[in-house]
Amino acid sequence: MQHIDTILKNGTIVTMDKSYALIEDGAIAIQHDTIIAVNTTRKIIKHYSADNEVDCTSLTIIPGLVNAHTHIPMTLLRGLADDLRLDVWLLGYMMPVEREYVTPEFVELGTLLGCAEMIQSGVTTFADMYYFEECVAAATASAGMRGVCGQTILKFPAPDAESFEAGLARCRSFLEQWHDHPLIIPAVAPHAPYTTTDDLLKSAVKLAQEFDVPLHIHLSETAEEVENSLDEHGVRVIPYVDSIKLFKAKTIAAHCVHIDAREVGTLAAKRVGVAHNPTSNLKLASGIAPVTEMLKAGISVGIGTDGAASNNDLDMFEETRLAALLAKTESDDPTSLPARQALEMATILGAKALHIDHLTGSIEAGKRADLAFLDLNRHHVLPHFNRVSEAVYSRIVYAAKSTDVLHVMCNGQWLMRDRELLTIDTDHLHRQAQQMAADIDTFLKAREEDILSKLLAIGELQQEESFEVQVKARLSDPAVVHHLLERPDVTIAKKSHYRQHDTYLSFEDSDYRLRYREDDYISADNRLTNVRSRLTLTESGKEREFENAVVLSRSRYIAQATRPLRFYREYLQAAEEHTIVKDRERWHVDYQGLRLYINLDKLRSPSSDGYFIELKSRTWSLRDAEQKATVISRLLSYLGIAPSELIRSDYFDITN
Amino acid sequence: MQHIDTILKNGTIVTMDKSYALIEDGAIAIQHDTIIAVNTTRKIIKHYSADNEVDCTSLTIIPGLVNAHTHIPMTLLRGLADDLRLDVWLLGYMMPVEREYVTPEFVELGTLLGCAEMIQSGVTTFADMYYFEECVAAATASAGMRGVCGQTILKFPAPDAESFEAGLARCRSFLEQWHDHPLIIPAVAPHAPYTTTDDLLKSAVKLAQEFDVPLHIHLSETAEEVENSLDEHGVRVIPYVDSIKLFKAKTIAAHCVHIDAREVGTLAAKRVGVAHNPTSNLKLASGIAPVTEMLKAGISVGIGTDGAASNNDLDMFEETRLAALLAKTESDDPTSLPARQALEMATILGAKALHIDHLTGSIEAGKRADLAFLDLNRHHVLPHFNRVSEAVYSRIVYAAKSTDVLHVMCNGQWLMRDRELLTIDTDHLHRQAQQMAADIDTFLKAREEDILSKLLAIGELQQEESFEVQVKARLSDPAVVHHLLERPDVTIAKKSHYRQHDTYLSFEDSDYRLRYREDDYISADNRLTNVRSRLTLTESGKEREFENAVVLSRSRYIAQATRPLRFYREYLQAAEEHTIVKDRERWHVDYQGLRLYINLDKLRSPSSDGYFIELKSRTWSLRDAEQKATVISRLLSYLGIAPSELIRSDYFDITN
Repeated sequence: MQHIDTILKNGTIVTMDKSYALIEDGAIAIQHDTIIAVNTTRKIIKHYSADNEVDCTSLTIIPGLVNAHTHIPMTLLRGLADDLRLDVWLLGYMMPVEREYVTPEFVELGTLLGCAEMIQSGVTTFADMYYFEECVAAATASAGMRGVCGQTILKFPAPDAESFEAGLARCRSFLEQWHDHPLIIPAVAPHAPYTTTDDLLKSAVKLAQEFDVPLHIHLSETAEEVENSLDEHGVRVIPYVDSIKLFKAKTIAAHCVHIDAREVGTLAAKRVGVAHNPTSNLKLASGIAPVTEMLKAGISVGIGTDGAASNNDLDMFEETRLAALLAKTESDDPTSLPARQALEMATILGAKALHIDHLTGSIEAGKRADLAFLDLNRHHVLPHFNRVSEAVYSRIVYAAKSTDVLHVMCNGQWLMRDRELLTIDTDHLHRQAQQMAADIDTFLKAREEDILSKLLAIGELQQEESFEVQVKARLSDPAVVHHLLERPDVTIAKKSHYRQHDTYLSFEDSDYRLRYREDDYISADNRLTNVRSRLTLTESGKEREFENAVVLSRSRYIAQATRPLRFYREYLQAAEEHTIVKDRERWHVDYQGLRLYINLDKLRSPSSDGYFIELKSRTWSLRDAEQKATVISRLLSYLGIAPSELIRSDYFDITN
Repeated sequence: MQHIDTILKNGTIVTMDKSYALIEDGAIAIQHDTIIAVNTTRKIIKHYSADNEVDCTSLTIIPGLVNAHTHIPMTLLRGLADDLRLDVWLLGYMMPVEREYVTPEFVELGTLLGCAEMIQSGVTTFADMYYFEECVAAATASAGMRGVCGQTILKFPAPDAESFEAGLARCRSFLEQWHDHPLIIPAVAPHAPYTTTDDLLKSAVKLAQEFDVPLHIHLSETAEEVENSLDEHGVRVIPYVDSIKLFKAKTIAAHCVHIDAREVGTLAAKRVGVAHNPTSNLKLASGIAPVTEMLKAGISVGIGTDGAASNNDLDMFEETRLAALLAKTESDDPTSLPARQALEMATILGAKALHIDHLTGSIEAGKRADLAFLDLNRHHVLPHFNRVSEAVYSRIVYAAKSTDVLHVMCNGQWLMRDRELLTIDTDHLHRQAQQMAADIDTFLKAREEDILSKLLAIGELQQEESFEVQVKARLSDPAVVHHLLERPDVTIAKKSHYRQHDTYLSFEDSDYRLRYREDDYISADNRLTNVRSRLTLTESGKEREFENAVVLSRSRYIAQATRPLRFYREYLQAAEEHTIVKDRERWHVDYQGLRLYINLDKLRSPSSDGYFIELKSRTWSLRDAEQKATVISRLLSYLGIAPSELIRSDYFDITN
């Protein structure tokens, strides 16, 4: 009779070992952090005695669940912004808030909040990717969980590194510091191919190989990513990263939504672990990953919640259930991804995907004691059919909830008993988290006070200091413009011809109006080429009028539009939208020492009879503006335009 | 100051009224079963005093959820059979078990189990469709829940009615009995267009109109249903039922997965309520309903769990979350079906879909007091951002769990306080449910003991009493058959030519072998027409051999195959499968007063040189078999076949 630390007895044990052994009246013998035997209770208590014998009557014991992909500190951003398109969500909310708030303290707090939630839902291991990953590691270790902690590396400045080189150095020191920890497996996490470079990825692989740690990366999450890869590299995402030998590292590839059969083959051949994130992929409308095909190819596909900011929880029961349900519709076959295989993904396949199945993922002698104890005798799981052994998997995957987890043990240590967390002070945690949310609310409210500050917040707009002087008039005969241009005192510096699509966004309770202009260049043979898109923000009531309806506009903000129109519409929540299409002939002319712009416009939509002429000049001071207004008035008189033809409003107002 | 029954105060009230009013420090005044005022706590306590003042500090109060489609007694069949195709699940498991077990007691027990689960997840109203619906109604009323209870009508015999007429009569007396109950809205439930007839549907509509009650039906659940409707009626499902004026009744249409834009238009115009069942549709791989499009068209789309046998729970939190997630991917737009609209579907839109929004679905004066009280201050819902009012909906839909429901009130009565059920004796219920499951397990185990009884259980096979005598031989020259046929003592009664696809299914630990034969008739001009499919079950070791390798086969079971091969493969869980394709010329001949069958076979796959000949006769007794064996031996000798050419095995063994 051997005396050991702990015997867990009289439970139903779902081992998830190679033979899927189920032990009806089973027991687990644990010494220190390790399972030393798994068998019937009768056999175990015959061979072992223990300081702690825990009666697990009526409980079902499963391997602690493995959350194969998350950004745990983002638990603090849960519910910050939902039901938005990826770019609006990421560029409009996540990144500005992260730039402002992500500090070591934020990361530690978010990690503890995430650990509390995951422990309560039966998770003992997770794979993370974030900034200040040493703080994730420290908080995870203090909570007693097992973490594959990936330090992010980006080609852009990050909250924890000014440059790619700094990020790489930070990652190296993180690996040095956390190598050989009993709970933490440090990892290298180049964010994604589109946020890194060839060089960066190669350095990341070298680093991962040097320390023999996993490499955690996002791959092929969206169709757009694949298109961009084809444009930039001439191949899809998987062959691209394969060509730069990424898979020489023990890779954890998150998402893999848009991959074709050949890419599935590559992932299988290169033993890449995949983290499937069904909720996040649905919520951001990224698509449905070909999980059935990947599993058939023998890929270790684990299940991940992704961050709570795009989920919005870290519940592996929900995630596993969704993975099983979704695969059936994706493959048009209700026998796809049956319950046992789904639980496999959430446990041993997840551990394999993380390259740590020697440590966790199943209940077997020699592995760490990472366990979740379920009470499956509640209404929503009853009754129990036992005709086939598969029934227990179906019960766990399709009917049980995370709140049916009663106890959790990780690495031989109890993290939860009777749903009470033993390693985390939750009251304190809740108060701190709520304080952080209140701070972020204040920050975002201030920034969203008006359209200008909301645009400035995402770095889209720069105030342009110059003013503009302009006059506009209806014109029935465009020939008068040509007469003007033929005058000997007028010199043409440049001539161009565009089709302009101007979309005006208006907002509730705001004097601002944003114009999104797309200029299509019209060639001599009438072909259209998109040249550029620009944003112009104007505020009504900020004009000053001179004689002859010459208007001085002030406080204009102008910028290249780096995002599609839809982004601005959704991010700024435009109340109204109005589009005008016109053909514009434009001349840069010099007259009496001044550079002027003459636009001859023909409205196409809404269509309008006749033409419009605009005379404009840039200016930098009020006095200069007055002088230019005089010159423009003179030119107007040459054109013979009657005062009744002068227009004080812009196209938006004319056509509305 | 008015004195009333109950004041619920200091809660956050999510009213789901027309303006989506949110009341921060809110109170609800309740008299008897009805909400008489909803306002700030300050205002309510100024105007009302009450016997029961309930402090709801830190709770969020939402309308009781509406489960728009379920088969509540099937809660008892939860986990009975999963990960199966619809036909295997339904014909192989659900229907045989229902035939055997569905009694008033089963229905009452299943209803109480389902009510317990639904109350604990914040549901106060559900729409049901099952047999013995008066027992569903009685159990629901005793549990204190609101139910739209649909008595099923079928063209087939049902557990509670021998015929359609009996079903209709039963439905009428159910309506008479339960009309005007405070909690129960009885309904007419013709199961689906494909399980009813024109006449039945018309009678159902008349009955629903006579009593002014809803009509609950499954419509367009699968692509196959639409194809069959096109075949049978020349139109899709919605125009078909519209043509027989189904929508004159207040219709609740479950599923509506496969509907086109025109059908969406019809449902909207006819004010049909739709019950969307995302989990069930995913699990059975039925497809994804066009919910975004239906909502845009103004259809009242509620959310249903469907029965727990295809879900496998009745958790409206999971269902609502899934509806929101799935719509984004279905419409390729992450802004589709935002959280507030999802909660709307689970509450007021569900009530509208059930045609009872005058009673429930929102927290408004004049409606019944149907309420769920949530504690949203747990890890998995924290932190709370309050920048926009939508955040509370996002919290409820994307992060909260059904177990965050603390109290439930229906019709002014408390059904749950602090998660303790007040109207259901759960211990007793659990024991009874477990006993029922054990009985069903025993029944199914007995039936699944061997392949024969498993086939008999679904009514597929009938033992054929006749034996067969046969001999088979290789033949290098087919001309010898023609010489035999030209003999003056041989009369040809019939000649045919087939291509036969024979698939043999073998099973683990079983001597049975099932042959699925598809006969394709080969016409004179070599065209193929599928004629029939047949099943033949043989048991090895049951043959008896006469001289010259003439074999008497006994214990053969034969039947028309009413289902595709795949059904038998999946239902019987075949271990191996082997297909043989041959061309068969077959003659029915009379010789010496005996009817014989001569088959001249040419194997096509696996291909084989030469031909095979079979001589066969049916027999009914051993003595007769011996006589026929002698005649067959004589014919053999005319063919000049050497004994070495005789074959004792059948094609399966020859080609394996």
